[in-house]
Amino acid sequence: VTDWTPRDPDFEQRTRASFARQAFMTTLGAKMLAVRPGYVEIAMPYNEALTQQHGYMHGVALAGIADSAAGYAAFTLMATDESPLSVEYKVNMMRPGAGEEFIARAEVIKSGRTLTVVKADVFARAADGGEKLLQTMLQTMIALAGKGDRVEHGPSAPPVAG
Amino acid sequence: VTDWTPRDPDFEQRTRASFARQAFMTTLGAKMLAVRPGYVEIAMPYNEALTQQHGYMHGVALAGIADSAAGYAAFTLMATDESPLSVEYKVNMMRPGAGEEFIARAEVIKSGRTLTVVKADVFARAADGGEKLLQTMLQTMIALAGKGDRVEHGPSAPPVAG
Amino acid sequence: VTDWTPRDPDFEQRTRASFARQAFMTTLGAKMLAVRPGYVEIAMPYNEALTQQHGYMHGVALAGIADSAAGYAAFTLMATDESPLSVEYKVNMMRPGAGEEFIARAEVIKSGRTLTVVKADVFARAADGGEKLLQTMLQTMIALAGKGDRVEHGPSAPPVAG
Amino acid sequence: VTDWTPRDPDFEQRTRASFARQAFMTTLGAKMLAVRPGYVEIAMPYNEALTQQHGYMHGVALAGIADSAAGYAAFTLMATDESPLSVEYKVNMMRPGAGEEFIARAEVIKSGRTLTVVKADVFARAADGGEKLLQTMLQTMIALAGKGDRVEHGPSAPPVAG
Repeated sequence: VTDWTPRDPDFEQRTRASFARQAFMTTLGAKMLAVRPGYVEIAMPYNEALTQQHGYMHGVALAGIADSAAGYAAFTLMATDESPLSVEYKVNMMRPGAGEEFIARAEVIKSGRTLTVVKADVFARAADGGEKLLQTMLQTMIALAGKGDRVEHGPSAPPVAG
Repeated sequence: VTDWTPRDPDFEQRTRASFARQAFMTTLGAKMLAVRPGYVEIAMPYNEALTQQHGYMHGVALAGIADSAAGYAAFTLMATDESPLSVEYKVNMMRPGAGEEFIARAEVIKSGRTLTVVKADVFARAADGGEKLLQTMLQTMIALAGKGDRVEHGPSAPPVAG
Repeated sequence: VTDWTPRDPDFEQRTRASFARQAFMTTLGAKMLAVRPGYVEIAMPYNEALTQQHGYMHGVALAGIADSAAGYAAFTLMATDESPLSVEYKVNMMRPGAGEEFIARAEVIKSGRTLTVVKADVFARAADGGEKLLQTMLQTMIALAGKGDRVEHGPSAPPVAG
Repeated sequence: VTDWTPRDPDFEQRTRASFARQAFMTTLGAKMLAVRPGYVEIAMPYNEALTQQHGYMHGVALAGIADSAAGYAAFTLMATDESPLSVEYKVNMMRPGAGEEFIARAEVIKSGRTLTVVKADVFARAADGGEKLLQTMLQTMIALAGKGDRVEHGPSAPPVAG
């Protein structure tokens, strides 16, 4: 574990505020737990609306909290005028999404001027505190300079009303 | 494009029925369009409940229809006693999720006895029919032999009630 | 297939010259074939010095020509003061490296200001011209601005003598 | 770090013997260091014959020892009648290959009946013992049952003489 120094002392408040604006995370029932420089944890409960055909949590829903934790782990180290964008990720799904609660833990492994590389793991947490590793992810983030995270419109096209 | 020969002549009905049992796809508002041997298309409309902090569709929601299209493209070629499981995928996110409708197209590129490799692309479709490539995915599926897709409980642990 | 417009009209000469400076490609016996805007082909013969324990070409040697073809496909679209660096790639190995000649074909699928996304396939080519798909790769390249490809020392540390 | 129990008590001898048969590893100048259940280390010196156009070690040569370490980490846990095959890997290249010696460390994170998931890191090691992380890899291996690693011919096609 590397000790990262955030460029923005208010990184935690900024990170939690951006997360709160992600409607998709609300739909997943995801909560942001720990936020430290280069490290973020996000948890979600089992939810039948997010299952696949066998009643397990869908792998993509679990990858959703991994991707979000990874992106925000990168975000904690960015400057206030930088906006994060996920470039790519790869995820290995090792066990089905059985459990009552799921937790993603993401940690920056390389923080560059433009790109940040993050790894994230998703665990199923049992009532007794035991954990099983369900997924592992490697993700690349890019920092878009010259714009903070509060932009109303993105880099190349406006969002549309549904 | 390869011409694949399905082992189950009723592959289409079986594929659509399994998709219909994925509650997560209903939550995403996803519809299965074309189903051919080794090929599946899934579409979803813009939905504010699935957005990230800038109002675009969240990249993971888009990856969700790519993963599902890819998994079911593999499923069309499996035998009736085989159940598909996603081993891993990698996705490059090339443009933000702006648009009114999104479509994932997945195509099997290697169908082995145990593993299937699938590529999928996600496009934003404009009202005039024009399309923009948003994401591209490579996915590996495994066929679990000796059980069909109608199992109530998965390979290593039962799902829990929420 | 997209029609890409190169920013440097001499892209072909510049691409072939950079490739010729890669000692590793000489070690692999790799030759650059077609070079077009956003597209590069590289071939290599079977070579016992590059095999794995069963006498097949090692998967990494084959991935080597895929990575190189992908990187140079991105390079064809870069400006003369930009240097390419491979950020990450993911490769699926679908068949063992059996054959007498191997060819990688790479094609840019997204050319951005900073990042380029490329897909590449590796085929075994039989004497009768028939081809088998062995590997498929997705790669992300970054353009380092303000320095051409002729730099003697890289971005953060000098190479050492062996 | 998980404690893995090998199914073959002679796993170390079997692993080192298979590695010794990989001509490509000899070409890379790679040596196998530690071999433990679910864990393998492979080192290689700087070698001008393996460089890219700026005099750094080529990223693919470094990925070569990561892939090999990962594959053999999986191999340590396989039964004597199983043969390992690399299904896919994804690698992030975080720093250029500057240094005098490079070391890959691979560790199994999931050992299943058919598939094994391994992570590997590649470091540059300085004369004073300091290390820099250059690459990180996630790899999936499959165990081909019913044949050991000493097969002369692979699963679907014979190797050819060069």
